[in-house]
Amino acid sequence: MGTAMSAFAPRTRVAILGSTGSIGTTALKVLRRHRDRFSVTALTAFTNDDLLGQQVAEFRPAFVGLVDDRTERRSGWHCGDGCLVEAATRDDVDIVLNAVVGAAGLDATLAALEHGKRVALANKESLVMAGELVLAAAKTGGGEIVPVDSEHSAILQCLGNRTPSEIRRLVITASGGPFRQWSPEQLGNATVDDALHHPTWQMGRKITIDSATLANKALEVIEAHYLFGVPYERIDVVVHPQSLVHSFVEFADGSVLAQLGVPSMELPILYALTHPERLPDTEIPRFDPLAMSPLCFEPVRSADFPMLDLGVRAGMRGGAAPAVYNAANERAVALVLEGRIGLGDIAPAVGQALARLGSVPGATRSDILNADAAARRLVEDRLECSRS
Amino acid sequence: MGTAMSAFAPRTRVAILGSTGSIGTTALKVLRRHRDRFSVTALTAFTNDDLLGQQVAEFRPAFVGLVDDRTERRSGWHCGDGCLVEAATRDDVDIVLNAVVGAAGLDATLAALEHGKRVALANKESLVMAGELVLAAAKTGGGEIVPVDSEHSAILQCLGNRTPSEIRRLVITASGGPFRQWSPEQLGNATVDDALHHPTWQMGRKITIDSATLANKALEVIEAHYLFGVPYERIDVVVHPQSLVHSFVEFADGSVLAQLGVPSMELPILYALTHPERLPDTEIPRFDPLAMSPLCFEPVRSADFPMLDLGVRAGMRGGAAPAVYNAANERAVALVLEGRIGLGDIAPAVGQALARLGSVPGATRSDILNADAAARRLVEDRLECSRS
Repeated sequence: MGTAMSAFAPRTRVAILGSTGSIGTTALKVLRRHRDRFSVTALTAFTNDDLLGQQVAEFRPAFVGLVDDRTERRSGWHCGDGCLVEAATRDDVDIVLNAVVGAAGLDATLAALEHGKRVALANKESLVMAGELVLAAAKTGGGEIVPVDSEHSAILQCLGNRTPSEIRRLVITASGGPFRQWSPEQLGNATVDDALHHPTWQMGRKITIDSATLANKALEVIEAHYLFGVPYERIDVVVHPQSLVHSFVEFADGSVLAQLGVPSMELPILYALTHPERLPDTEIPRFDPLAMSPLCFEPVRSADFPMLDLGVRAGMRGGAAPAVYNAANERAVALVLEGRIGLGDIAPAVGQALARLGSVPGATRSDILNADAAARRLVEDRLECSRS
Repeated sequence: MGTAMSAFAPRTRVAILGSTGSIGTTALKVLRRHRDRFSVTALTAFTNDDLLGQQVAEFRPAFVGLVDDRTERRSGWHCGDGCLVEAATRDDVDIVLNAVVGAAGLDATLAALEHGKRVALANKESLVMAGELVLAAAKTGGGEIVPVDSEHSAILQCLGNRTPSEIRRLVITASGGPFRQWSPEQLGNATVDDALHHPTWQMGRKITIDSATLANKALEVIEAHYLFGVPYERIDVVVHPQSLVHSFVEFADGSVLAQLGVPSMELPILYALTHPERLPDTEIPRFDPLAMSPLCFEPVRSADFPMLDLGVRAGMRGGAAPAVYNAANERAVALVLEGRIGLGDIAPAVGQALARLGSVPGATRSDILNADAAARRLVEDRLECSRS
């Protein structure tokens, strides 16, 4: 473990929030190859204590957290919601990889930034819900946000050392999801199982549903707006079914840069840990233009995938509107995964929540959390009404 | 002319060598839009004194040069070969755009670099013939080379502020030229007119022939080797018929960046003048992924286009071999354009010159020029022999 040099160069200390999920396990796969450069000092999971136990045995973190306190407590583990913030703010942590799913990740993002950490952000909901607060936390605390999403990692890499003022336009690519070529009639009959079969990316269930409805792309547009300071009018989405071009940046002189790679989260995770440096890694699958030709692009079918425009409009509206969009969607997707509503019920539920709550204030953390809770209740109430 | 600010920010002073050619006229088109940032202080042409006269009337440079001294001398113009170096070394010049065709551009490149100028290099032959000498001149004189070739401009833009040590591989794209899909039998009957109809780029006649034989791509591989310090083993060529992706850079962590744009030299010329800055320019045609889908890539047909491998091997051999390759090709292409030999005669002539002269030394300027002259004589002699 480690090279001769590692005795002299201190290793970067990483906390992984959500270590048993798709991003978390991929991150540990990457970190396993780079133990001379990184140590894992904190791991937290939601409920999967078996896998967490295995990870702890291998990586021997100083801190172990399990959010779900109904699970039998293991010796020395920290249990309950608070473990996320606890892990994110430890003195022995340099980088917090926030791979928590959903709104539950917000407090850890804020706390880590306030404590001057780098946040490798896979929890895009943090920025979507509370973009202004998150940016303010980074500013006051001296922390920095480096995106883990492949699209935003691509933009960051294309940007290099240039300032956002040199950006004319961002073009975020979308695979189009499993329903890209489905007719409106077919979409009406789509099932959860259909939605869970994503053509190019292996991901968790919540984000896979969001990819099928294009809600995920709306969240990414809002995330890009805050990360790179680009107005919504200059952020476009284009469908690219192969998921090889991860995004484009058009600069003020008309030049366009793109970042390409096979659909694997290993590179964006590694880059979020090393940015602006690049760490040699020969095990990340290589992009070969010959094997991957042709690269195709097509317009988004906005009318058939209303969650995209709904989300972008919520972003433009600002205030608590993006938090309402995110929370209503999160609750609706949970109901879909529980089989209690259909895929086609998500957009009307979110649209209704935005109509009712889209203008509530979003200046403070409690504004945001109130809007989040109210949006979830509205989605629940709508389900109850439709049943009664 | 100029904005309010231009009264305070001194304009960058540009000399254009080869102002009446394809690159030269495009450069003036770009500079016409940016008169608040640039002034044209020197213009030189080879023989086209009419067009040069019009350019002088419009841009009013302090220095005018005409290489061809058989042309009637106009009042105040500097005539003969020496005018290139004279223009390139003037105190009132900051950037020398060297758009001379062929080996004739070498001395101006060396002189400009020795005088600490930025050389915006469209004359790739300078680097191909005398890469080591050109790099040494830049080092001793404090000058810098910024490429104008679209492929090398793409690599420079993808590289950003990263060091060449972070590059794992360069992938230079090639349109494949007009003969990309021609069978070996068809290639045997290809005419100069066929070769002059390039599918994507409007360029001068010499470089258009080089694009048809892929000799141009060999020159670009050698140029990239010197510009970016990447070993030949890590420079690949891939055919991309649309000429929209101008090259790829693969980094040590497996990430790939690409620069894209419509096939127009306006952007690479502007970027060579402004690097590392980007100057807003809304008149450069915009790249639209939707309109330009799909992007296709295919392998080079090396066996059918022997000039590529011949050139890359000459580059690997080093010494005067690249100068021999360049000179033999330059003379052979001139004979093709004069109708004295066929397209199929170029590769055998260049191969023979390399077999005879590929091992001559290339340490000094006179070594290089001797090898250049000897290679040209060999191509001439071969023609005489085949006639007698």
